[in-house]
Amino acid sequence: MSTLSQIVIGDELLSGKIDDLNMKFLAKFLLDKPIQFVNSYFVRDDEDTIKNTIDHAFTTSDIILITGGLGPTEDDITKKVLCDYFKTTLEERNNIKKDLMDKYRFLGKDWELSISNYHKFPKNAEYILNPKGLAPGIMFKNEVDGQKKILIASPGVPREFQVMLEEEIYPQLKVSLSLESDEQEYMHIRTHGIPEEEIFNIRYPKLWKELEKYAKVSSLPTLTGVDISLRIKRDVDLQNNKDSILKIIHSTDLPKSIWHIGPESLAEVIVQKAKEKNITIGFAESCTGGLSASKITDISGSSSVFIGSITAYANEVKMNILRVKEQTLIKYGAVSKQTAFEMASGARKQLNVDISISWTGIAGPGGGSDEKPVGSLGIGISTKEKTSSKMYQFKGDRLRLKEKFSNHGLLLLLKEIENFN
Amino acid sequence: MSTLSQIVIGDELLSGKIDDLNMKFLAKFLLDKPIQFVNSYFVRDDEDTIKNTIDHAFTTSDIILITGGLGPTEDDITKKVLCDYFKTTLEERNNIKKDLMDKYRFLGKDWELSISNYHKFPKNAEYILNPKGLAPGIMFKNEVDGQKKILIASPGVPREFQVMLEEEIYPQLKVSLSLESDEQEYMHIRTHGIPEEEIFNIRYPKLWKELEKYAKVSSLPTLTGVDISLRIKRDVDLQNNKDSILKIIHSTDLPKSIWHIGPESLAEVIVQKAKEKNITIGFAESCTGGLSASKITDISGSSSVFIGSITAYANEVKMNILRVKEQTLIKYGAVSKQTAFEMASGARKQLNVDISISWTGIAGPGGGSDEKPVGSLGIGISTKEKTSSKMYQFKGDRLRLKEKFSNHGLLLLLKEIENFN
Repeated sequence: MSTLSQIVIGDELLSGKIDDLNMKFLAKFLLDKPIQFVNSYFVRDDEDTIKNTIDHAFTTSDIILITGGLGPTEDDITKKVLCDYFKTTLEERNNIKKDLMDKYRFLGKDWELSISNYHKFPKNAEYILNPKGLAPGIMFKNEVDGQKKILIASPGVPREFQVMLEEEIYPQLKVSLSLESDEQEYMHIRTHGIPEEEIFNIRYPKLWKELEKYAKVSSLPTLTGVDISLRIKRDVDLQNNKDSILKIIHSTDLPKSIWHIGPESLAEVIVQKAKEKNITIGFAESCTGGLSASKITDISGSSSVFIGSITAYANEVKMNILRVKEQTLIKYGAVSKQTAFEMASGARKQLNVDISISWTGIAGPGGGSDEKPVGSLGIGISTKEKTSSKMYQFKGDRLRLKEKFSNHGLLLLLKEIENFN
Repeated sequence: MSTLSQIVIGDELLSGKIDDLNMKFLAKFLLDKPIQFVNSYFVRDDEDTIKNTIDHAFTTSDIILITGGLGPTEDDITKKVLCDYFKTTLEERNNIKKDLMDKYRFLGKDWELSISNYHKFPKNAEYILNPKGLAPGIMFKNEVDGQKKILIASPGVPREFQVMLEEEIYPQLKVSLSLESDEQEYMHIRTHGIPEEEIFNIRYPKLWKELEKYAKVSSLPTLTGVDISLRIKRDVDLQNNKDSILKIIHSTDLPKSIWHIGPESLAEVIVQKAKEKNITIGFAESCTGGLSASKITDISGSSSVFIGSITAYANEVKMNILRVKEQTLIKYGAVSKQTAFEMASGARKQLNVDISISWTGIAGPGGGSDEKPVGSLGIGISTKEKTSSKMYQFKGDRLRLKEKFSNHGLLLLLKEIENFN
């Protein structure tokens, strides 16, 4: 299998000013491709460091993919560094010049070529089209000890990089390296409610080794639960191996804690199952402050099942829109089983949905008490048949608590959808 | 200045299954410390790769910080690799054993020590307390050619790593390397509405070089606009340099496009300014689906200004709760200036707030038309004095459009708060 290292260039990432979006995208993209993603390097935009990192990456990988540093400003040094590294110089390319002029015209700008240097291109490199932006990609092909080595540089802007990877870079790699079909398949077993240590060391100490007979195992605690991932070789035994894995899993109590088998997000599974059953859903959010609704609406097509949500941050909104009784808020407090109950029931009626979920809790850092510490959460669930509510307790800082609160309610919603008649 | 490389261990990251949270945290943490963050390596949990990466990282850095691979499962190999690398073996440590038993007791578990190996510790390493979890951190000190080199391994769970970094790891590094006070300061100039290329290459082609006289300049396009960051040496000239930078900025038209000078997020600035003016805010979200409310409620203390939000995904909610007229929806459509207007005005009344903002648009991939393509957005703003609304047009995929939509509305909200009497 071919191997690939990514080099991400930019001080912004090592200064914490932006989140990198490309590594995860690249990782997911390569999952079912015959290229193993072995390393990702984040480096400062310093010439020596970049050259030095290219040297190191070529010791482990056939392909290096550099992202970033191709923009128009002075800190964009990738092209210069690559010319030095491959001992070449820049030349003007007429095809790039023409492409640029077309793009400028399309944008309605009368910019001069002199203001950008995108059309100046390393002499012995190949051009990679950038359908979403101005800076083209650059590909160097090399041979070291009879081994083909490829270096590709792409803009780091996620919108540009991601389209280029799918439409231009991967197809070109496939041809250059004569890549064949995919070689492995993933099985994702998604659990909740049991810590990793308890699964593998206490309840089922032999589970890992048994699964390893059929797949490469990895385990990952998330803010929802534990994901067990199995990488299975895609050969004649594939189906047998998958069956054996499921048999092992079903010989344990784990299925009770599994909310999904597959790579989809919790929100994706909810939207899909609700669609299948033609169920409409709606929320009442206090502590999660819109996060749960935002997760569901991240999913394309969610509008066919998701009707809306009331983010009732202030008590007045709980009373005026969700019809929570003032007496309930006074007697039990905003974070209580009783308030969660009335919020869920009120949301179901106001939004006119089949199932509603409510969240009311304390995400902190302030607002906790001995009786109701930070991390306290009330969740209510309401259907035409029945409304119920319960208190839970979680740990974490504000952002992580919002995330855990939201995930817990969405897990309960998923169960409710599955049991809905 | 001391230099630091991070090595993140874990197949999960290179498989795109999780987002790394520690690199950004570490980067932000180190920003004002006398340690330069030079590299971050993401590697698979493979012994040779890890050793090889340690070798490489020590060529550029005095300090290596390894995160991940210290957990209880079979793919957690950091401890073994470090013993090999530093040619040592594991020994049982009584102090760690005691600490573990206390933690187990605190969790109310009657686990046996045999199920974990946290108390087995490399012989010539120092122990670093983990206040939030079971696996302790490990510190190796070395001297290479008279140069002090330090390697620290920490659990990768963000909650554990982040507390350890602040409370244990950094204080120990400070002592070991006799680190002095901070050496530099950042100035963040946050703009919107002008592309990077236009700022530096068209409007103000000399700006970059002029700023470079006083600071190291970097520029970063975000989903809100362009952030210009200036790293200024913290010496006797600091105040003069800052003044000179502001003078340069004010000699241009850029101030019109600056929404903030400082590192705070847009939501943070909104909450802070609304607090100062004692203004309450509320939203009506359709296409952004709760994202804007979630951003505001990410900010601790937002409850004193943010009252709530109606996520009106379905038209029924726009009519029943926000009181948008059916006639408006039929005549102009849900994504229109007119609907945005009525949503904003309805939200202000229903939520009883000083300022309300509404979002109604098409995030795609479906739902677009020739007249109103994907990326169309209507925003309404309502105060007691005046309600207004306008259509905008953006580009991107669903998630990026949600983000751009939300940011654009929040920028308008910020302006409204600043002008509010």
